Parts: sequence; structure tokens; C-alpha cells
Amino acid sequence: MKQRSPNLNKWLKMTGIFTFLALASTALAQDAAPAYESYEAFTESSGFALFTINNLWILVSAALVFLMHLGFSCLESGLTQSKNTVNILFKNMSIVCVGILGYALYGFNAMYPGDFNGIFAAGSWFAVDNSDVAMMTDAYAPYTWWSDFIFQAMFAATAATIVSGAVAERIKLSSFLIYATLLVTFIYPITGSWQWGGGWLSSLSMGGMTADGDPIGFYDFAGSSLVHAFGGFAALAAVMVLGPRLGKYTKDGRVRPILGHSMPLVLIGVFLLWLGWYGFNGGSVLSADPRGVSYVFVTTTLAAAAGCVGAVTLSWILLKKPDLSMGLNGILAGLVGITAGADVIGMASAIVVGLIAGALVVLSVLFFDKIKMDDPVGAISVHGICGIWGTLAVGIFVAEKSFLNQLVGTLAISAFAFIVSLVLMLAIKAITGIRVSEEEETEGLDIGEHGNEAYPDFTAAHK
Amino acid sequence: MKQRSPNLNKWLKMTGIFTFLALASTALAQDAAPAYESYEAFTESSGFALFTINNLWILVSAALVFLMHLGFSCLESGLTQSKNTVNILFKNMSIVCVGILGYALYGFNAMYPGDFNGIFAAGSWFAVDNSDVAMMTDAYAPYTWWSDFIFQAMFAATAATIVSGAVAERIKLSSFLIYATLLVTFIYPITGSWQWGGGWLSSLSMGGMTADGDPIGFYDFAGSSLVHAFGGFAALAAVMVLGPRLGKYTKDGRVRPILGHSMPLVLIGVFLLWLGWYGFNGGSVLSADPRGVSYVFVTTTLAAAAGCVGAVTLSWILLKKPDLSMGLNGILAGLVGITAGADVIGMASAIVVGLIAGALVVLSVLFFDKIKMDDPVGAISVHGICGIWGTLAVGIFVAEKSFLNQLVGTLAISAFAFIVSLVLMLAIKAITGIRVSEEEETEGLDIGEHGNEAYPDFTAAHK
Amino acid sequence: MKQRSPNLNKWLKMTGIFTFLALASTALAQDAAPAYESYEAFTESSGFALFTINNLWILVSAALVFLMHLGFSCLESGLTQSKNTVNILFKNMSIVCVGILGYALYGFNAMYPGDFNGIFAAGSWFAVDNSDVAMMTDAYAPYTWWSDFIFQAMFAATAATIVSGAVAERIKLSSFLIYATLLVTFIYPITGSWQWGGGWLSSLSMGGMTADGDPIGFYDFAGSSLVHAFGGFAALAAVMVLGPRLGKYTKDGRVRPILGHSMPLVLIGVFLLWLGWYGFNGGSVLSADPRGVSYVFVTTTLAAAAGCVGAVTLSWILLKKPDLSMGLNGILAGLVGITAGADVIGMASAIVVGLIAGALVVLSVLFFDKIKMDDPVGAISVHGICGIWGTLAVGIFVAEKSFLNQLVGTLAISAFAFIVSLVLMLAIKAITGIRVSEEEETEGLDIGEHGNEAYPDFTAAHK
Repeated sequence: MKQRSPNLNKWLKMTGIFTFLALASTALAQDAAPAYESYEAFTESSGFALFTINNLWILVSAALVFLMHLGFSCLESGLTQSKNTVNILFKNMSIVCVGILGYALYGFNAMYPGDFNGIFAAGSWFAVDNSDVAMMTDAYAPYTWWSDFIFQAMFAATAATIVSGAVAERIKLSSFLIYATLLVTFIYPITGSWQWGGGWLSSLSMGGMTADGDPIGFYDFAGSSLVHAFGGFAALAAVMVLGPRLGKYTKDGRVRPILGHSMPLVLIGVFLLWLGWYGFNGGSVLSADPRGVSYVFVTTTLAAAAGCVGAVTLSWILLKKPDLSMGLNGILAGLVGITAGADVIGMASAIVVGLIAGALVVLSVLFFDKIKMDDPVGAISVHGICGIWGTLAVGIFVAEKSFLNQLVGTLAISAFAFIVSLVLMLAIKAITGIRVSEEEETEGLDIGEHGNEAYPDFTAAHK
Repeated sequence: MKQRSPNLNKWLKMTGIFTFLALASTALAQDAAPAYESYEAFTESSGFALFTINNLWILVSAALVFLMHLGFSCLESGLTQSKNTVNILFKNMSIVCVGILGYALYGFNAMYPGDFNGIFAAGSWFAVDNSDVAMMTDAYAPYTWWSDFIFQAMFAATAATIVSGAVAERIKLSSFLIYATLLVTFIYPITGSWQWGGGWLSSLSMGGMTADGDPIGFYDFAGSSLVHAFGGFAALAAVMVLGPRLGKYTKDGRVRPILGHSMPLVLIGVFLLWLGWYGFNGGSVLSADPRGVSYVFVTTTLAAAAGCVGAVTLSWILLKKPDLSMGLNGILAGLVGITAGADVIGMASAIVVGLIAGALVVLSVLFFDKIKMDDPVGAISVHGICGIWGTLAVGIFVAEKSFLNQLVGTLAISAFAFIVSLVLMLAIKAITGIRVSEEEETEGLDIGEHGNEAYPDFTAAHK
Repeated sequence: MKQRSPNLNKWLKMTGIFTFLALASTALAQDAAPAYESYEAFTESSGFALFTINNLWILVSAALVFLMHLGFSCLESGLTQSKNTVNILFKNMSIVCVGILGYALYGFNAMYPGDFNGIFAAGSWFAVDNSDVAMMTDAYAPYTWWSDFIFQAMFAATAATIVSGAVAERIKLSSFLIYATLLVTFIYPITGSWQWGGGWLSSLSMGGMTADGDPIGFYDFAGSSLVHAFGGFAALAAVMVLGPRLGKYTKDGRVRPILGHSMPLVLIGVFLLWLGWYGFNGGSVLSADPRGVSYVFVTTTLAAAAGCVGAVTLSWILLKKPDLSMGLNGILAGLVGITAGADVIGMASAIVVGLIAGALVVLSVLFFDKIKMDDPVGAISVHGICGIWGTLAVGIFVAEKSFLNQLVGTLAISAFAFIVSLVLMLAIKAITGIRVSEEEETEGLDIGEHGNEAYPDFTAAHK
């Protein structure tokens, strides 16, 4: 799970206790000091090889999650029209870069505060220097402080990227950039801290107590709720404020499909996301533990494959044709669905979770079109609906978890994301406007916002 | 090599012996019990760090082999016409997902049966639970049971994907899906078990005995024959049954090239395949052993580079122009060629193997066109012919191996794949038909099979 | 840093000393012998697990640097016209393959000679066989000889690839292939050996001495100068000899933009390069040391993100529109900028280095267009100018380094690359010509050089 390791949590708790105790006893406080005199002493310790591999896996996972941003860029641009491609790519590029910097300057320490109050914590400029021994040895976690930061930073930017797809082809660039920056830097860390920062969800006692007398708590291994439902419901609010693209819903109530411009880009995007998910889920083990990481690789893979089968089967029945984009969204649905319980759900259950997620995404896409919520890439369905499904699935398929807790947790996160996103979007709408002009939307945002085209050699023929 | 590690093989053999001995002596059987009381005891053992890194490498390799499926998707769609792109991507997506599920539900245990009979074994639902200590420690192998499964599952799906390219642009979707599902789930594990499952090829004694008195055996490190020649000759049979695309061969005997639609997609595909091959070959060391993996990385790289040089040089001479797709197929040819002996062939020999593979693929592509075997992507040449070449090269360049064994093994596998594929295709042809109508083929399978287009913004201008 | 590990450097130095001493004393020479009787003895040593992980990280890094070649291919083809795409992809494919073979046959041993003379060293056929224990244990380095080779080989080919982009759309294929082969195989190893081979730059004493009395030396962690400025200034010379593309600069002095043909390809290229940089910089730690690699991941990421922000901000101000390709080049600028000091520059400084690199690349691109140096992809600015900036930044932001040394080193490398490239290009121009005919340039090099098209389905409509 994404919570800091037992070692670290212990250390964090100890920090608080020792702040008091240190006043009474210097001797006791000594025990909380880093276990190694110097980094060199650590490198010569017997646990150094294992620490090195654990740390490396977190870094490789961070690189894989980074690759998911390329996946999102391909997916979103492929599923939309070529006249808006430059705009979409620009948004994706910007979110990664601004998201990482915002998370570095504020978000990381807000999400994982040393002295956490359970609701919100002010962050601070991150600052660990090259000589802070405790932060780069197992006194901190099974990985260094820097690995912790980079892995979490890559995660954070995904939340805003999810919204990006849903609002594509009509949102004003500057408004979106302001919205996304605020969302990643200030809002995502709040719900993040509720669970992974050790906040109220992590010790939720509604669902009862474990045999040891601890609260069962909410469980979200790698973020079905904290990342995906968060992004999906933020997207829903954004779409409600923004309205559908011109011409998507005709006056007589029919849905006019607006086709994406490149299915190879869509497939490349989905496969890169699948690949990146091995880091997203696999890295969330927070070590290279063979049992943990191997297990998570298999559940993740089975759910992705089953998601595809579920979506293809249902859409073939409902739509009479085998639909490629439904199949690809089914893969993502399966991946989102397994994310909350990838380390605890059984193998056969992982297949069932994926199958249901794949079917759900088809129904959800049709449903949101029916209620005229125009989501060009299906982000609300894939991340929002399947994020909730995945979180609930942990309560259904894992005996030790509580369905009630899972329900409370995922609704709390989704509702919070929805409300804050709604407020943000309404505020930005009031201040600067959020939608491009009708002329710009018709001509394409590439020319309107960027004075540029994505494919000048190919699209010239259409003019 | 892909055979299970010595530890595991020993354990598998011991299983058989102990089934008997256990009846006589409980004490002896105790020795075969897992070496660790619990997983936690294992994590505290001195070998745990090394196990963790070995296991992680298998997982990372599995992720790299997964990426090869994206490579195949790009390669195949790039080398074919844009009117069939959705169909090709759909096939590739489906094969990965169905292949993984089929391998999970049946293939894995059929290919690696505990009590192997040398020819065929029924598989069973895979089931290792989170508490089976033996299967997740070095009592099983240098990696966990789950890592074993996921690595092998990613391999299995490649065999059917190879066929996919050869039959592109005219095969009926539903027929292909049935064919591919049967091939991955039931047929691939049979030949796989002959060698990697400890079957008859692994102890082939035709080529003589080693100094220790053991049979030299057939040798196929990572699957030049078991994966590539298998796929290539299954493809040949499929192409024979299916016939060429309309208009490919004119009545007066000329070959009319049907051009692919995106060379960047082709290059992306080949480079991703090259990258994935570091997992395909590197992971087949079945540990992160520094000598083994480093060595394999270098032979694999040299053969790929030499394959390109060989193919470019020969095609430049024969066709008078430097041909990009020949160069890219040369890279794949070099990779397929080195796969059988990547861990035993010398560095200079790896370059020679690659050069010859690159030249072979050019000649083979021209040859199959001459005999009117229409293979849009050159899969038969790249995987079939170079798969055989690579297998034989082990017999030629490695003193300890037997050319005769290599010949017998690769022919047995290729012939088996060819015959079973022929039977399957003929049966499906008789029952449901295997080819789309002439109208659909002319208009494109995307509209015909999927009611969709890959590039609506670009291709509209052509109508 | 990219220099061989202390162990190895010591060993290399000892080699020289012992050549003399061995004559007097056989006993002493024994100490230089490999520490292990056999590879098997090494596998049982206590340091084997750590060696395995270090070695694996170098291999994974090599794979990531390999992926950068795909990144370059996408970037360069995306930023140029579709009529030259086959040609650009062919060049990129060829450089990787020829570069690796050239480096194997000559470059590697020329760059890292056992007995180095400080200026130049003849290379030799590389040859380590499977039984050379010293070269595959920690007697050599924290990784095997093969890992060393493959990592360095992947680096070497990047230098020529940088030039490829700058000379695109008008250079004769055969001339470029000769140029690139000579550059990678013979020229890159010379400047490489100045620093990473233990040559004169590595012990530069101009900037003063350390507290220990050693020369401060030039510092280039992963190649801001040795790879990027080298490639960038080689490119500048090539562009000067070659001249601009037809129609780029009008007679009345205006710059006519020649648009690239696919922005998704450009973004894919940049994101893959960013990903690959985790291997480029992360692998240059030359071990999996948790402090080193984690630190480098974070500085690299922050600089990339800041480079984007710097470039977008300045170009938005100067050009009035948010420019996608400037933002993407800003990412690359930030990455090139941090490369020289990724392991020693502070976190806040990394952001500053990136911001300035991002701004610099915008100014530089505009400047080179003003002086009519036609560089279709901005390679001179990204790699040349930001390579120098990154190298100088180490002298500015890191107290222990010398600005004077950094200046001398980067100018020496850039000037050497420029002059040798100029001589090479002039010589090739005199002998075979370097530019395609005006007709071919207008029609496109794909038809002219390759008789082929990249997108026959889409471009047919334009004719």
C-alpha cells in the first residue's frame, strides 16, 4: 500500500512522541536518531544490498509512471480531432511539468506532513540536502527521501491529466492551466493526505475493528479512489460547468459522434498506460518485495486483460460491432478497477473485477452520453466510475476489509474532488471565462490558441 | 536458457522420485519440503537480497516482453493500408488479452506440468495462493511462481501475434480470434513443453552425449524455434489456406506492391521490439546473473545491428535503393537469429549470425513473393526462416552443441506448427469461412468489420 | 560520473605501475590479479548481490539510452516534412546500428584505453571471452565489462544522431552515412577519452587544486559537453558547409518557417528522450547507489520540468502564442543543461539551471535563424548551446568546481568537434558532394533517395 512503510510511520509517530519526551530525557531521544553515523557506514551495513534494490525499484516505477503521461498524451490526442491536437499535447506537456514543480515546491510536504492533523497541512519548500543521512537510509523508509518524492510527484500529475481529456476540444488554454495547477498542487494532496498521509480515512473505524483491536480503516492500495476517482469526479464537475462540444448533441436529442483522428495513437497510449501501471501498482508495494511485486504484476495483468474482454463482449452485443476504442477503454477500466486491491485481491477475483470494470465502462460511456455529459475520451467512466468500482471491490472480494469503509472513503474522495473542482471551475469561469469562442472551437484550438497545426502536410488538403 | 532453473528442475525431478519414495519413507520426503517455515523467515535469510533482484529482473523482463506487443501492433499496422488499421489493432489488442487469460486458465500448467509425460499434458486452473511459501521462495526457482507465470504468459501471446501480421488485410475477424485463441492456449504449450517443459527435445540424444554422459539435447535459449519459427510456420500454413490479397499478384505474373501506410509506425514498432528483446532474451537467463544477462545484452545488440547492415547492404545491391523496411526487418531478423544462442554464441559470431539473418530475410521476402505467398509484413521470413537459421547457428558456432539436434528440433517444431495451423485453418474455413468478401476487402476491413475508421480526418479527402 | 569507478581507475593506474614493478617483483604483481579464482567463487562472495544490482542497473540504463534513439527518430521526423520522413528514419536507424558496430570494433577501446596517452589511442577489436573472470567481477568495476561496453555504445551513437536532425531534408544519404560512421567511431572517442578515459581534462589543474592537493579537474557528469555540445557543434559545422534548405530564407531577408509534419511524433520523441535520460544520467552514476541514483533522478526531473516552463514562458512573451515545439525543446534543453552536474547541483539550482536552459533555447533558436543557420530541429541550440550552459553551470552552482576549468573544457570539446566536423564535411563535399539536387530536395528525399514514401495513403491526395 501507498502509506509510508511501517518503519517510517513508526518514525513519524515517534517524532511526535519524542518531541515531548526529548524535553525530559536526552537519552531516549538518541534512539530516534538515524541508525547510521554516515552514509558510508550505511553502505557497509548488511542490509544495504536489499535497500539498494528496493530503492531502485521505486525509481524504475517512477520512470514507468512518468511514461503514463506519454500514454495519456497519445490516448487523448488520438481520441480527439486533428484540429485540436497541438492544444491537447500542449496541455499534457504542461501538466506534467507544472505538476512536478508544484508538487516539489508545496504538494509533497502537504500530503505527507511530519506532524499531521488529519485534515490539511501546509506544505513547505522541500529540502533535503546531500548530507542528511537519515533521509537516505532505512531510517526513513526502504528507499531514499528523493525516491519517495519522485515517485509521488509522478503520481500527482496524473490526477489533473485525467481531467484534461474530459474537457478537451473546447476549454480555454490559460483557464485550464490555472485550474490544473491548483488541482495538482493544492487539492490532490488534501485527499491524498486523508489516506496515504495517515489521515482520517486510514484509521476509519466505521467498518469495525481488526482482531488486533485496530480500526479496519479504508483501503486503497495504489489509488483507485485517491488518484482515479479523484480525477474522474473532478472531470465530471468540469464537464458540467463547461458544457458539451458544439454539435455533439443535436436539438432532436440524438448523439452525434465526434470521431478521434488516430486510432494507432489511442492504442499506443493505452499500451503505454498498461506498461506504466506496472510501476503505478508495482511501485506502490513500496519495496521490491518478491511476493508483493510479483503478486501485483499478475493481478494487474489479469484485470487489464479481463477488462478488455468484458468491454469487447458487451459492446459487441450492444453495438453489434467489435469496437476498438471500447476494448482499449476496457483495458484501462480493468487497470483502474484492480488498483485499489491489487495486493490483496485473489487471482480469480482479479479477473472478475476486470470483467465487471470492462462492462461498466461501456454502460457508463453510453449513460454519460445519454445525459449529455460530453467527455471526449471517456475519462469520467474509466477513472471515476471504475475507480469507485475498484474501491468497492476490495470490500466485496477481501474478507478482512469493510465494504462500508470502502463506500464511505470512495464517496468522500469523489465528492470532495467534485465539489472543489466545481467551485474552481465556476470561479475561473466568472473571472476569466473557461470556454473558447464558437469560431475558435469550429476552426480548431490549434490555430486559435497556438497559431499552429499538428499535421500541416495532411490537413492542408481539406481546406 | 528458458528451462526452469537447475534448482527447479531438480525439484521437479525430485517430485517424481519422491512420489514413490514418500510411500516408503516419510523422513526422506521431508527434504523436499520448502526450505522456509514462512515467507517472513525467507525474507530474513542471507539469500533474500539476491532472490529479490533475480525476481525483479524477471518481472521487468515480463514488462519489456509486454511492450513487444505494442511493437508488433505498430509494426503490423504501419506496414499495411490505413483502411485496415482498426482491424489490425483490434486483433493485436485481443490476442494479448485473450492469450494471457488462456495461458492463465490452461496453457501455463500444460506447458510446465509437474509430472511431465514428454508429449502433452493437461493443464489446470492456475492456483497459488498468497500463503504457498514454497512457490514464492527459492525452493521454487530464483523467482516466485507469479513471476514465472507472468513472464511466460507474455511470451505465449507473441506466437499468435506473429501470425496476425501475415494474414492481415483479408482474414475474417471472428475466424482469426478463434484460431489465435486455440493456437496460444492449446498448441503453443505443446511444443513449448517439448523443450522448456523438460520434454523429449530437451534430452535429445541423436547428436551424441556430453563429456558427462548426458544427452547433448536440443538447444533454444529464448525461442528462435519455440516462439519464432513456431509462429512463422503457423503463419505460412495460414497464408496458404487464406490466399493472397486481391491484386497483389497480377495475372501476368508480376508482383504489385501494396504499400504500408505509415513508416514512422513501422520504425516505432521495430525499435520497441528491439527494446523488448532485452527482456525476451535477457529475462530468459532466468536470473539477474551479471555474467549471463550482460553477455546476452551484448550478443543481442550486436546481432540486431548486424542484421540491419546485412539487410540494407543486400537490398541496396539487389533493389538499387536503400530500403527502410528491409533495414528494419533486418534488425528483427538479427534479433530472431540470435535468440536461440544469445547466451552461448561468441561476440564475433553474433555479428556473423546477424549479418546472415539480415541477408536471409531479404532473399526470403523476395522468394515468398515469387511463390505468391502473400505476407504483408514479412512475418514468415523474419520469424520462420530466421528462426530456423538462428537455431541452426547454435549448432554451427558453438562447439558443445549438435548441428543434427538443432536441425531435428527446429524442423520438428516448425513442422508441427505448420501442420496444426493448416488443420486449424482448414477446419475453420470449412465451418465459418476465413476470408472477408471481395467488397469488404476492397473497401477496407475497418468499415466492414468494425464500422469505424482509423484516421477519419485524413482519409475523408480520398473519398 | 562517467569515469570508470575508483576501483577500475586504480586498477588502470596500477597496470602502468605494475608493468614496471612486475619486472622487479612477481610477488607484488600478484596483488593486481583478479580477486576471485572463478566466476562461481565470485557468485558466492558476500558482495555478489550488490554487484548484481549495480550491474543490472547499468544494463537497464543502456536499454533506456537505446530508447533515446527511438526518441530522436520520432522527434526529428516529426519536426520535418512528410516527404523526407523515410530518409530521416533511415538515417536514424543506420546510425544506431553502424554506431554500435563501429564502437564495438574500434571506439570502445580507443575511448577507454588501458594505457592512455592523454590525447589519442588506437582501439582494437574488443575481446573478452566468457571465461575472463577479472572482467566480469568487481575486479573490473561495479559491473561487468559487457555492461560497460553496451552502456557506452548506446551513448556513442547519440552524438551522430544529434547532427542528423540539423542536416535533415537536404543532405545526401551516402555522404551522411560516411560522415556519421567516422564521427562515432573515430572522433567521439577522442574527446571522450580526454575526460572519461582519464585524459588531460580529467586532471586539468588550471582551476586550482582541491584541499587534498589534487587538480580540481574538468567536470562533466554524464556528457553536457562530451556528448551534447560535441554533437551540437559538430552539427553547426555541418550546417555551415551544407547551407540552408531551399526557400527557408527569402531574398528579402525573411525567415520562412518550414513546418514539421506531425506534432504527436515530436511529443512522443521528447517524452521518450526524457524517459531515456533517466538511464543516461541515472546510469552515469555507474552503480545503483541509492543516494547517487535517487538524487540524479530528482535533479534531472526538476530541470526538465523547469526547462519547459522557461521556454514556454519566454516564447509566449516573445511570440505571443504558447508554442508547443518550444516547450518540448525546453524540456530537452533542461535535460541537456542538468547533465553535466546532475549529481552535484542542488535541487533549487537544478530548477534554475532548467529555467535558464529553457529560456536560452528559445533565444538561441531565434538567433541561429537570424544568422541563417538552418537547423530544422533546433539541435545546435538544444545540444550545443545548452550543453555549454550546463557545463558552465557546474562551475557556477557547485562551490568545489572551477568555472575556469568548465569553460576551458567545454570550449575545447566544442571547438574540436566543430573543427573536425568542418574538415570532414568539406572533405566529403569535395570528394562525393554532400547535398541532394534541387529537384530532389523539392520533390522530397524519400522518393529521390529511397524510391519510397512514408505515408502513401495520406499524401497521394496532394499530388
